[in-house]
Amino acid sequence: MKNDGHVSNGKSPVILLGMGQVGRSLLHLILDYNEKARIPEKIVIAGIADSHAVVFDDNELSQQMLADALTSKKAGGSLEQVSGAQPLSEISSLITAGAIIVDVTASEDTVSLLKPALSRRGGVVLANKRPLAAAWSQAEVFFSHPYVRYEATVGAGLPVISTLRSLISCGDSFSSIKGVLSGTLGYICSEMERGALYSEALLSACDRGYAEPDPREDLMGADVARKALILARSAGWPLEPDDIDVEAMFPPSFSDLTLNQFQDQIHTLDQEYALRTQEAQNAGKTLRYVAKIDRSGAKVGLSQEERDSILGALGGPENAVIFRTHFYNDVPLTISGPGAGPLVTAAGVLGDIIDLSVHMREGQ
Amino acid sequence: MKNDGHVSNGKSPVILLGMGQVGRSLLHLILDYNEKARIPEKIVIAGIADSHAVVFDDNELSQQMLADALTSKKAGGSLEQVSGAQPLSEISSLITAGAIIVDVTASEDTVSLLKPALSRRGGVVLANKRPLAAAWSQAEVFFSHPYVRYEATVGAGLPVISTLRSLISCGDSFSSIKGVLSGTLGYICSEMERGALYSEALLSACDRGYAEPDPREDLMGADVARKALILARSAGWPLEPDDIDVEAMFPPSFSDLTLNQFQDQIHTLDQEYALRTQEAQNAGKTLRYVAKIDRSGAKVGLSQEERDSILGALGGPENAVIFRTHFYNDVPLTISGPGAGPLVTAAGVLGDIIDLSVHMREGQ
Repeated sequence: MKNDGHVSNGKSPVILLGMGQVGRSLLHLILDYNEKARIPEKIVIAGIADSHAVVFDDNELSQQMLADALTSKKAGGSLEQVSGAQPLSEISSLITAGAIIVDVTASEDTVSLLKPALSRRGGVVLANKRPLAAAWSQAEVFFSHPYVRYEATVGAGLPVISTLRSLISCGDSFSSIKGVLSGTLGYICSEMERGALYSEALLSACDRGYAEPDPREDLMGADVARKALILARSAGWPLEPDDIDVEAMFPPSFSDLTLNQFQDQIHTLDQEYALRTQEAQNAGKTLRYVAKIDRSGAKVGLSQEERDSILGALGGPENAVIFRTHFYNDVPLTISGPGAGPLVTAAGVLGDIIDLSVHMREGQ
Repeated sequence: MKNDGHVSNGKSPVILLGMGQVGRSLLHLILDYNEKARIPEKIVIAGIADSHAVVFDDNELSQQMLADALTSKKAGGSLEQVSGAQPLSEISSLITAGAIIVDVTASEDTVSLLKPALSRRGGVVLANKRPLAAAWSQAEVFFSHPYVRYEATVGAGLPVISTLRSLISCGDSFSSIKGVLSGTLGYICSEMERGALYSEALLSACDRGYAEPDPREDLMGADVARKALILARSAGWPLEPDDIDVEAMFPPSFSDLTLNQFQDQIHTLDQEYALRTQEAQNAGKTLRYVAKIDRSGAKVGLSQEERDSILGALGGPENAVIFRTHFYNDVPLTISGPGAGPLVTAAGVLGDIIDLSVHMREGQ
């Protein structure tokens, strides 16, 4: 590792891991932000990395290098093509002490960079859920360290985590958290409510770009389970991944199919889900894919919700989180809105970077 | 004025104006907070004032003095009865440079303390809407100064203002804001929806302690108009009070009545409001008291809302705020929950004090 101090007048340099849609949206937002910010508030980008290469400058990447990187990525290329790029393997030797690592990947492997950054007076901003959803012994540091932020891991840019943390710092304590945390599964439930078959709803979600390339990634509920785990741990309940009871929206036998086989057989599930949708409607309710969390554990799966309740009234890919706490007991505190998308996710990450920069300067 | 520095290791001393329900809840929350906080995060209370007297200590009020003050106020007394109290007229000479003035009064008169505090490197936290809702030339400083916070002025503890400010600092821009911002009027609308007469709904709101002693204070809409003005100005639209079009929930002729006369004549309004409630129901909608705000002005009054919309589905005294912005365009960002009450209001104020303390230390 190189420098052992902050660059440019106490500002923590930012190193961005991940140059997918969120990473590129974030870079654009930071460039816009820096145009308007006063000098002490400007964000200094010292490095950016994708899964192949890292582009780094001891002080600050030039506007030209950032523009080159964006152009190369937009054209579907890799950072390897940017002049001055180094192999990704160099990255751990490049990270300066006091840097803020911003992880917008979906990788398990970034932890080996994140933890050393924290122990060297740096900070971490995560849109990547995996470091937070590992076994508690591995993840605990990210929940207890004062220089970690992760707003965008739940509900994208919606102020879910900041609200939760602010309540706790004001002395509130949580009773339960309930939410619709997957835009994809929310959309599928809404479509089935409107009369679509399961297979039709799923194909429509794929067509609109809501679903992962292999939609079983969404349907298995693992991503919602990770969000539930993050909410639980943030509320002060150190649950383990095994404490989350997850209902997938396909039978276990479908896990072993190839993607083509899966797509061919989707329609065989139509009848079952039409029946469940009908059952909910017969009870005057509607089916939603819901996470229910308290100190004893979490349940993630289909749930019958009142039609005129907040979760029942959600349309399409909208997310909602409902906090019941000591302060918000009779009537809960609810936050709802779009919970996915590169722009709002990047906005959530930028908010974290701004907030963390203030706290890190204050702590010096 | 006395000291020209911060007490105790860079911490900004807090001076609390207002010892009503919110002020007392806040003191309890701060005492609880300080028990758990690490030393550099503790909140130092240097002074408290009610409308009669001020209790002040150059360094920090002792636990005993705070306990005495709470006991005296709880018994319906004034701070004058606390040993060492000084006349309120002394307060401006007591405020130290760098202090945080926390205003939880409903007074017009605190401005003469707030502005000097800001010009002497101090900060301001407001639950009091009046300084923010004055003519723009008078109020502007509270929206532009980096050391002013006012979360509790709209939606009590709900994260309305912090979310708005965070979006703007991330480069977002607002298209419109819409909300139900009065628990009292929300409750009256819900009751009328359930079949109650206007006079019955109003009396029930008074019985439950939702309404002011003279309920015309709520019904005239002025408090909602102040909140609308605060939201508009926070969104970057420097509206004047006259730009808010307010519909009162009683005719102008009722303004001149005594409270007793008003109470005697309330029932003469029953038919009109029953008709308006029925009209909404005939259109498949429901009546809500809504603030609609954009850059050109604001409208505050009764509005027909879809039953299964967020505002239409609100029950009882719940508040909701809906932000439409560049980032949140197709689907808005919504925050809802209880928007009044001493505990949640105090929690909103405490969150502001904590946040402001960090920013003030960072700025030194």
